Amino acid sequence: MNRILWILALAPVLAASPDEEIRAVLDNQVAAWNRGDIPGFMEGYEKSQSTTFVGKSITKGHANVLERYIKSYPTRASMGTLRFSDVEIRLLGTGYASVIGRFHLDRGPEAGGESAGIFTLLFERTGQSWKIILDHTS
Amino acid sequence: MNRILWILALAPVLAASPDEEIRAVLDNQVAAWNRGDIPGFMEGYEKSQSTTFVGKSITKGHANVLERYIKSYPTRASMGTLRFSDVEIRLLGTGYASVIGRFHLDRGPEAGGESAGIFTLLFERTGQSWKIILDHTS
Repeated sequence: MNRILWILALAPVLAASPDEEIRAVLDNQVAAWNRGDIPGFMEGYEKSQSTTFVGKSITKGHANVLERYIKSYPTRASMGTLRFSDVEIRLLGTGYASVIGRFHLDRGPEAGGESAGIFTLLFERTGQSWKIILDHTS
Repeated sequence: MNRILWILALAPVLAASPDEEIRAVLDNQVAAWNRGDIPGFMEGYEKSQSTTFVGKSITKGHANVLERYIKSYPTRASMGTLRFSDVEIRLLGTGYASVIGRFHLDRGPEAGGESAGIFTLLFERTGQSWKIILDHTS
C-alpha cells in the first residue's frame, strides 16, 4: 500500500468527531482548573469581546470573564476540585454546538463548601478548534 | 411597472429580518402569558421531545416543559404580568440564534411577589418560523 493510501486508511482513526473535540475542550478546562490555572481554564472560551458569561449578572468579553473568575475564586482552596457530569452535546449545523451539563465543586467548608449547578454552553467552531462563546451557569 | 416588478420592489419591505422574526416570537409569548395562556406561551417552543428547559433542574420535551409551567404557575394571579428587557440576539449561521435577555414578573406579594432573572434561549429556524429549542432561565 503506498503512503497516500495508508494516510487515507488511518484518517478516520485520527480525526476526532465534533463531539470528541468538544469533550476534549471540557476535559482540558477541568484539568486546568484542578491545577489552579484559571487562564488555562479560560482557553476554552473564545478570545472575543462578545464572549459572554451569564451567572447572577451578565459579563461580556473574554478579559472580563477571566477577571470575574479570578475575583470569584481568589485562592487555590476556593477553586476546590472541579468535575463535570451529564454532559450532553447537540450539534447546530456544522459551526455551532450547545452543551448542557452539571458542574460539581468539591471544597472544604472553610473554602466555601460544596458547590454544584447546571451549565448551558454555546460553542463555535473557529477554524479547527471549538470555543465557548456563551456560558450560562446557575 | 408590471405586477412582478411591484412584488420585487415591495419584497424587502414585507420580509422581516431574522431579528424581527425572533422578536415577534418573544412578543407573542409575552402577549400569551399576559392573557393567562400558557399553551399559547408554549407556541414559542419547538414541539419536540428534545426541547429543553433548564431551571433549578433540567426538563426535556415540549409536553414536560408545558406541564412544568402549569405546575409552577397554577393560577392566573401567580402568572403576574411578564415583561422582557435587554434582549440581545446573535445569529448563529442561518439556522440558529442565541438570545440573552431579562424577564420581570410583576406580581402582588400574595401571589408570590416580584420575580426577575436572566434567560438564555437557543432558537432554531424550522421552515419559515423560529422556535426555542433550549431555554436556560435563572
